[in-house]
Order: sequence, then C-alpha cells, then structure tokens
Amino acid sequence: MGAIESRLAAMGFTLPQPRKFPNPNRCGCVRVGNLLFVSGHGPHHPGMQIKEHGKLGQDMTVEEGYKAAQASALAILATVKAAAGDLDRVKRVVRLFGMVNSTPDFPDHPKVIDGASDLFYQLFGPEAGCHARSAVGMAGLPRGQAVEINGEFELRD
Amino acid sequence: MGAIESRLAAMGFTLPQPRKFPNPNRCGCVRVGNLLFVSGHGPHHPGMQIKEHGKLGQDMTVEEGYKAAQASALAILATVKAAAGDLDRVKRVVRLFGMVNSTPDFPDHPKVIDGASDLFYQLFGPEAGCHARSAVGMAGLPRGQAVEINGEFELRD
Amino acid sequence: MGAIESRLAAMGFTLPQPRKFPNPNRCGCVRVGNLLFVSGHGPHHPGMQIKEHGKLGQDMTVEEGYKAAQASALAILATVKAAAGDLDRVKRVVRLFGMVNSTPDFPDHPKVIDGASDLFYQLFGPEAGCHARSAVGMAGLPRGQAVEINGEFELRD
Repeated sequence: MGAIESRLAAMGFTLPQPRKFPNPNRCGCVRVGNLLFVSGHGPHHPGMQIKEHGKLGQDMTVEEGYKAAQASALAILATVKAAAGDLDRVKRVVRLFGMVNSTPDFPDHPKVIDGASDLFYQLFGPEAGCHARSAVGMAGLPRGQAVEINGEFELRD
Repeated sequence: MGAIESRLAAMGFTLPQPRKFPNPNRCGCVRVGNLLFVSGHGPHHPGMQIKEHGKLGQDMTVEEGYKAAQASALAILATVKAAAGDLDRVKRVVRLFGMVNSTPDFPDHPKVIDGASDLFYQLFGPEAGCHARSAVGMAGLPRGQAVEINGEFELRD
Repeated sequence: MGAIESRLAAMGFTLPQPRKFPNPNRCGCVRVGNLLFVSGHGPHHPGMQIKEHGKLGQDMTVEEGYKAAQASALAILATVKAAAGDLDRVKRVVRLFGMVNSTPDFPDHPKVIDGASDLFYQLFGPEAGCHARSAVGMAGLPRGQAVEINGEFELRD
C-alpha cells in the first residue's frame, strides 16, 4: 500500500470499489497526457453509513451533505487509483466542480463540498491538496443523489 | 468524406451547419495543444424532427430528451469538424458535461444524456468513444432548450 | 502596469483584491503547464456599485445580472494576475462556464454572462479574447449570489 493510501487508512477511511457503469459508453476518467478528466461521482460508498439521497435545504442537513461529499471524494479516489495504479502518482488535485442537489434558497454549497475538499487537502497536503473549486446548486441529480463532483487531477511524469 | 463521417452517414445521421454565435465574443471551441475545449451546445439541428425546448419531468419525455441530446452531440461534432478539419482527427472523446433542463425531482439525467454518449460511443468505437461524463439537472437553460452539453476532445498529433 | 491592465483602466475598470478563501483547502486557480484551471468566481468587487445577490427572473434584471457577470470577470482577472504575475502573460481566454442563479423559466442566461464575455473580448481583443462558453441556469449559488463563473485560461510560454 502506497504512502497516500496508508495516510487515508490512518485518517479512518477506506476506498469503495471503483464505480462500474451500466453502459460502456462512459468510464470514470480519461487521461490526456498527465491530466485526468474525471466523471461526476456521487456518494456511492457501501462501507459508509451516509445519507446518499436528498435535497439540501429540504430534507438533508449540511452535516449530512458534508458526509455525502466526503463519500463522493472517496469514489473519485477509487477511480483515480484504478487509472493511475497508485494514489502516490497524484501530483496535484487540480480542480473540483462540486454540485449540490439543493433548493432555490439554500446558501451553503461551500460548506457541503468542503467534505470533499477537506479530505483531499488533508490527504495530499497543503500544496498538492489545495485545488481550484466551484460549489453550486443543482435543480436535481441522478436518482435524487445529494451531491455529485467531477474534476481534474494531475499525475506525476 | 472521412471514415468517421462515412460511419455517421451509415448510422443515418447528418451534421448541421456549425453553430454561429450572435456575438463575436465567443466561439464553438478553443484548441490548446491537442485538446479542444468545447462550448455548451444545445439541440439545434434543422434536419432533425426533435423537440428542442422543454423541461424533463414536466413537458418532455426521456425519449424526447434522448433525441435532444443526440442532436446536441451532432451540433458538437459540426463544431469539432470545423475546428479539426476532419472528424478522423479526433483521437478521443475525453469528457462530456451533460446538462438537462429538468424539474427538482426528475431522476433520469443519465438516460437523457445517453443520447449523446451512445452516439459518440458507436461513432468512434469502444476505445476512442468511451468518455468521462456528468449528467445533471439544471434549473434552466437558454431560451428553454431541453439539453446543453459541453466537453473536451483530444485530437491526433 | 502592463498593456492589458492599462487597457482595462482605459475601459474604466479596476481589479479587486484577489479573492481570499476562508479555508486553505482551495485557491483561486491551479496551473498545469500553460493552462490555468480557474475556480468559480462570484461578483465580489468592493469598488463597483452592483447588486451582488439575487435571482434572475425573480428579483434582478438582465442589466443587473450583466453587471454582476462583469464583476465576476474582474474577480477572475485578479486571480489570473496573481497567478501569472501580469495579465500580459495571458495568451488566450480558453473557456468560461457561466452560471446564473435563476428561476426555472428564465431564458436569457447568455445575455447575463455576456457581461463577462464582452469584457474579456474587448480587453484581450478578437483573437485572444474570443472563447468557448456555456451560460446556464443554476438552482442556487453560494449565499444567494447572482452569478458564478469558472473557466480555463492559457498563458504564454
């Protein structure tokens, strides 16, 4: 197990299985040079006790949303590991696009997506883990999931 | 006509004219190295009998949305062809961001955006056509159009 | 002061301070090679008299939204300047993702985001300033802000 995955375990987290898609038209990420363009990932993590579906501002608290963003980050990491071979090959978390299933007047999208950003920051450290980000409110997400996050990662040469 | 465009014709599709913009401040895509960063494209295809405007979950079926995503994919291809000269120069469909104009409880964004993903997958084949993706619900889209898709494409050297 | 920033001043605009984030997990942009991946920026510009918060189609006019997009563009430029050292190092405005806090039936997202696109086009000129773009409607944005824009910029070697 690599250094980053050991740190993840020490933080108390596990990786889910990399997401499988119901249709071969798409996959978890595509690599171009050293850049990984990552699909939208929701909070699918059978090993975590989280509320996966819901709408912030309606039937889900910011704390529950934070956990859902955390689970989405772990789903992304499982995809990145499968593509890169080892999480130690991540040079930089480049950017996240954090989407929150939320009501028209919900104000706290950043506090929800911090569940992912805090995890990446703690895991990869203050340089490699600090990333560009948007955290915004969606009218809806697939099957009513609470959060979806996509983004870009840079790998080492 | 190149191999990919011949395959597109054999699949029964035609390309619309590349989208023209009402203001010169923007264009259909911008190339950086071998990467094309593509604008959001809606279902504008005069040659197709489709429902271009509507909101999924309200006044439009998943099947109509699928067709709108298909038309959006063809609009993207017209832009990519204009930029690359020939669709045979596409090395990889990298990633799509699929936006569905939909109600707060609509659950089937992936089934709608499959209209674009299936087309790209069948057209470019299982390696070059398989892409990263998000399929999510928007509060609204320009002029009430049903679907908008942007993304990244990789060209050959 | 560089040529681009002089032109910006001649256009009657000033740059705000680069945005500071409440949490070190994120930053205004991340550079990979010559590409800047830019965070979502809202209309935070203390030097401008604008309506920063509101929902298009409900309590904000297109003209007010246009000004908010303009302020968001200036916030992006402050981030890009801080990262690149000088705005003259921008080779190309590559792509904007323009998000409008709006009601389900608001139709004019492009007219709002033109506030940013027109500014970039006039500032960088018809080649470097013409960019790919999406302009779409969000269910909500952080703290009720009216507009948020992210994107990609290319720097010179």
